[in-house]
Amino acid sequence: MKSKPLILITNDDGVSAAGINELAECLKTLGELVIFAPDGPRSGMSGAITSLIPISYSLLEKKEGMTVYSCTGTPVDCVKLAVNDILDRAPDLLVSGINHGGNMSVCVHYSGTLGATVEGCILGIPSLGISMTDYTDGASFEDCCILGRSLVQHLLEEKPPKGTYLNLNVPNLRQVKGLRVCRQADGRFINEYMRSENACGVPVYWLTGSLYSKPHPENDTSALDAGYASLVPCKIDVTDYGYMEELKRMMETITIKI
Amino acid sequence: MKSKPLILITNDDGVSAAGINELAECLKTLGELVIFAPDGPRSGMSGAITSLIPISYSLLEKKEGMTVYSCTGTPVDCVKLAVNDILDRAPDLLVSGINHGGNMSVCVHYSGTLGATVEGCILGIPSLGISMTDYTDGASFEDCCILGRSLVQHLLEEKPPKGTYLNLNVPNLRQVKGLRVCRQADGRFINEYMRSENACGVPVYWLTGSLYSKPHPENDTSALDAGYASLVPCKIDVTDYGYMEELKRMMETITIKI
Repeated sequence: MKSKPLILITNDDGVSAAGINELAECLKTLGELVIFAPDGPRSGMSGAITSLIPISYSLLEKKEGMTVYSCTGTPVDCVKLAVNDILDRAPDLLVSGINHGGNMSVCVHYSGTLGATVEGCILGIPSLGISMTDYTDGASFEDCCILGRSLVQHLLEEKPPKGTYLNLNVPNLRQVKGLRVCRQADGRFINEYMRSENACGVPVYWLTGSLYSKPHPENDTSALDAGYASLVPCKIDVTDYGYMEELKRMMETITIKI
Repeated sequence: MKSKPLILITNDDGVSAAGINELAECLKTLGELVIFAPDGPRSGMSGAITSLIPISYSLLEKKEGMTVYSCTGTPVDCVKLAVNDILDRAPDLLVSGINHGGNMSVCVHYSGTLGATVEGCILGIPSLGISMTDYTDGASFEDCCILGRSLVQHLLEEKPPKGTYLNLNVPNLRQVKGLRVCRQADGRFINEYMRSENACGVPVYWLTGSLYSKPHPENDTSALDAGYASLVPCKIDVTDYGYMEELKRMMETITIKI
């Protein structure tokens, strides 16, 4: 008898966050679930790894079809440690999320949710990151779960190419209009700091800011603004192949004396 | 009179590390330098940002042509805060490094050195990350400085395309054979954890492991192994354009009921 698919689940909001628990609930009939997630919030941890101190983990719960661990590390540490030391076989899928907050455009470079997704992909696991663009308390994960479950079912049948992972964002509307496959929007944050003071009167800076991105009919921020969920296929290989030949020619013209 | 180029320098080994200080020393005749770097080691911080607590900075030194700041944040925080609140004009160039340790292949996804480089590029600054593949204490940064200086001179004249940054790695040989423009090697780390125990007998895990990468005549790890420095042009936009159309077709065939 073929064993059930093994699905590794992690996030960056921590193991007790609503998003990861609602995700697990809606995926539990699709496979054997192992939740291995940070013991608290790790938002904005990107692909950070813990190398200067050791990490550890605890088993929180084990029941039919689902095992839950809490880990002291980053989202990437969670994926690495689960694959290296916990799981007895390679996962059929990694799902990271559901993040409470959007990870469109350049957020892919800051997000711990996507950091974990990148790591799964590097380790050869079909990987999907799921984020909801609603930051409010008590926001409903319902649309996200429906979309996430459909995609997971699909990915268990048809894997993305090696070295490619998927970034799903779902807007905060009661009725999402549908799903659009998109490119990453060209964007950046502006007005990024709020200056304040600590208790000794020393200036301190809180990260804030707004994402500014260029509208484009095919990009993720435009799809989300129009009420669609966005799905961006992303690559581990970030080489700018289009610029390589030009850069080669330029490097030939400069003298590098060693 | 045209003002001197403004060069923003940061790293992930901290403001007092040898690599950043040797880099500044060899670049000081090329422009006005602002060093804005973490107050201690931030290796493996990738593109992490600090959002749950505020950050702060101190002016350490101001002399002719060079100002040095120390910041409590990550490498990306340093770039953001310097550009948002410190500099009175946009930098002509960002240089991150010299990192003590290589950042070839998939290390681009974990490295704080490259995290800062990515951030510079997102903010529209021509950006270069420099790493030396020698982890030993007292390793010489000489070859790195010579190559780095040549590239910086070049980049002040000819910028890479918007959205593209450069990743320079220099091997630990007394005589580097030359510079090769490369693609990012397809790789992953293996055997990533050393199990140990804390003082209470609880198992803890130290990140370790070896980078395994596929040899390819054009990739960075092969160039470094052959004694060359490697220069990889990298993109902020990680969209897998080649897979978009196939993914669109597949998404049309699955039912997503919302």
